[in-house]
Amino acid sequence: MTTYTRFTLTRSSPSLWRVTFDNPPINLIDAMMMKELLTLLTEIERDKRVGVVLFDSADPDFFLAHYDIAGDPAELEGVETAAGRHPFTELHIRLSKSPAVTISAIRGRARGAGSEFALATDIRFASRERAVLGQFEIGVGAAPGGGALNRLSRLVGRARAFEILVSGQDFDGELAERYGYVNRAIPDEQFVDFVDAFARRVSRFDLLALADIKRFVNAATLPADESLGAEIDAFWKSAERPAFPALHRQAFKAGYSQRGPVELNLGDFVGTILADPDSYPTR
Amino acid sequence: MTTYTRFTLTRSSPSLWRVTFDNPPINLIDAMMMKELLTLLTEIERDKRVGVVLFDSADPDFFLAHYDIAGDPAELEGVETAAGRHPFTELHIRLSKSPAVTISAIRGRARGAGSEFALATDIRFASRERAVLGQFEIGVGAAPGGGALNRLSRLVGRARAFEILVSGQDFDGELAERYGYVNRAIPDEQFVDFVDAFARRVSRFDLLALADIKRFVNAATLPADESLGAEIDAFWKSAERPAFPALHRQAFKAGYSQRGPVELNLGDFVGTILADPDSYPTR
Amino acid sequence: MTTYTRFTLTRSSPSLWRVTFDNPPINLIDAMMMKELLTLLTEIERDKRVGVVLFDSADPDFFLAHYDIAGDPAELEGVETAAGRHPFTELHIRLSKSPAVTISAIRGRARGAGSEFALATDIRFASRERAVLGQFEIGVGAAPGGGALNRLSRLVGRARAFEILVSGQDFDGELAERYGYVNRAIPDEQFVDFVDAFARRVSRFDLLALADIKRFVNAATLPADESLGAEIDAFWKSAERPAFPALHRQAFKAGYSQRGPVELNLGDFVGTILADPDSYPTR
Repeated sequence: MTTYTRFTLTRSSPSLWRVTFDNPPINLIDAMMMKELLTLLTEIERDKRVGVVLFDSADPDFFLAHYDIAGDPAELEGVETAAGRHPFTELHIRLSKSPAVTISAIRGRARGAGSEFALATDIRFASRERAVLGQFEIGVGAAPGGGALNRLSRLVGRARAFEILVSGQDFDGELAERYGYVNRAIPDEQFVDFVDAFARRVSRFDLLALADIKRFVNAATLPADESLGAEIDAFWKSAERPAFPALHRQAFKAGYSQRGPVELNLGDFVGTILADPDSYPTR
Repeated sequence: MTTYTRFTLTRSSPSLWRVTFDNPPINLIDAMMMKELLTLLTEIERDKRVGVVLFDSADPDFFLAHYDIAGDPAELEGVETAAGRHPFTELHIRLSKSPAVTISAIRGRARGAGSEFALATDIRFASRERAVLGQFEIGVGAAPGGGALNRLSRLVGRARAFEILVSGQDFDGELAERYGYVNRAIPDEQFVDFVDAFARRVSRFDLLALADIKRFVNAATLPADESLGAEIDAFWKSAERPAFPALHRQAFKAGYSQRGPVELNLGDFVGTILADPDSYPTR
Repeated sequence: MTTYTRFTLTRSSPSLWRVTFDNPPINLIDAMMMKELLTLLTEIERDKRVGVVLFDSADPDFFLAHYDIAGDPAELEGVETAAGRHPFTELHIRLSKSPAVTISAIRGRARGAGSEFALATDIRFASRERAVLGQFEIGVGAAPGGGALNRLSRLVGRARAFEILVSGQDFDGELAERYGYVNRAIPDEQFVDFVDAFARRVSRFDLLALADIKRFVNAATLPADESLGAEIDAFWKSAERPAFPALHRQAFKAGYSQRGPVELNLGDFVGTILADPDSYPTR
């Protein structure tokens, strides 16, 4: 039995696994979480009985805050991936293609790479009152790199994908539902019961038939692996431009990646910082 | 003039045909209905004046219940189709490509193959109070085979397609509209008038321009014929696995395919049966 | 500095341009407007600092009424386009691919080619009370030719695209939002402030990152240039059939292209005219 430090794994039944993110203070996705999620994926792929994997969070304010950009990239060295993919891209591709049905139960914030992890799962339910989704990356000088460009385009359509991506704003549960960013926003007081009943129901169905459904829907809807690879490459390239570190310096100074008002209202916050306050950007 | 036994055909005008399903007790799609629908398609394709075909039901509780799985497969032998296609796949492909605009006016239940017939028409209007749509097949051990995997993926997007397909649940008119499963849910007291006015209006427009619209929207949105063929093949393959007959035996015993509580609440019902109650399924 | 006669161009900042349509009496898209918009596109493409271009209207009843079909086609001769494209198709293709984010702020009517211009921009916000969108072309004997067939298919899905296109009806802001025809319908009293704040916010973000977003979302969502070319070709072919001039004669007689009840309620109006009142159309 593998021991995980960034989340707990509960086998509610042989066919229903619950993964509860628990990486204080705000559920950042760090290198260790990524490695552990890849290990979890291997467990899922090898198991013959898991039909449903439900992802939720121990922190009602943060589902997954975002990527831990302050972490040491060297920590990811040595992680084996197919075709030299970035581990995060690898994780998402394998998650989407796993035979199990994956569900994100989103209470609290799911932004940046946290939103992208949720987008890589099959189904997203959101707490109407507590869920906040967003791709704030434009506010710190980059396009998202973990799949949001490709997946939002297909999921919510061109126009709403543009709005989410170029505004970097927060989307509450209700608007996220209207846009198709999540399947449904459920009133928070019914949220846990609704999601649990849904997951339990699906986990009792025939696993071969569930795998058939995944195979056909995947063939009809998944972006090409290569375009996901191009996305992450573009992200790291933008990180080398001057705006990226300049904006991150200001964000960290204000409280980025810490529990507090900046992370609670990150969508609003990124609208207040400028790479170079004395001049307009040029292309 | 062909005589039909599973539905009535009314030519409200040369350019507006109404097809009213009437196959008691619950509008099952049996071999005879399939053959008659294929004959109807030939009539539509040969006619030079039909612009709109409106499908509705004589039974306010059932638009089309689902496929009559208890029927004798031999009854479909000898039905000529292109490239050895299953007659149901053939029907849907020809329906989508016919120059006439096809509209499903859904009051009552449209599940399984009944939902898939509606998905193969161009436009779906639903009674807000009376319509119930669903793909319950996962509950009887199979992925749908009549186009739902391909068509829902394109129509409602990856995440909501997964939810509909892996839950097997019923979706009422209001939720079906929010998900894009139907165009709109119309209050039942306005439903007939709304649909009739819409169909009449469209049927008076220029037929060549309507055919242009169908051609371009088809090119942009239709799934490939081969992927629809693969879907039905996967369905019949799943029917040979043990879970399929085991679940159907329990369903028939409880009232499946009969008028009564099981068929009225089939989404809930399939959540109560297990292929092998003593063990969890394996893949 | 180019002088424009069909719209005003205001540079609110180096990275935020506002284009206000102003072509009385009802903001028809005539040959001059098309030429000026192509010139504007060249300005946008050459500028290194424009991040957002916001399109709105000086007329609260008309965003862009539709194409000025009564204009002399010779006025467009000599307009240089790639690969012999129609200028309108050229305009839309270049608009979609420009590195700047384009936003339509729709108050009043956007129908036919006016709706198609809005569909070629990246984001559409609509006044809940004042916006009216539609593709009325079917009512005058043609399928739309300026991108609506391809773009609506991708944006709102097969079924709702069919409904919009074959009905030719008007869609108010609220229904346009439910269908995804616009991003959101905003209460009119908040509309200007909302759109301005959105555009200003986006215009201050890193222009290279905005261009990255456009590149990836374009790759995932844009229709092929050739299918847009086929659409306009089909339109002009339909204009040579008898129904097209017959229906336009009746429309012009009733007040088409003039300020008045026909243009205010064009969706309803086109349901009242017939190409040949004495016979049903044939295909």
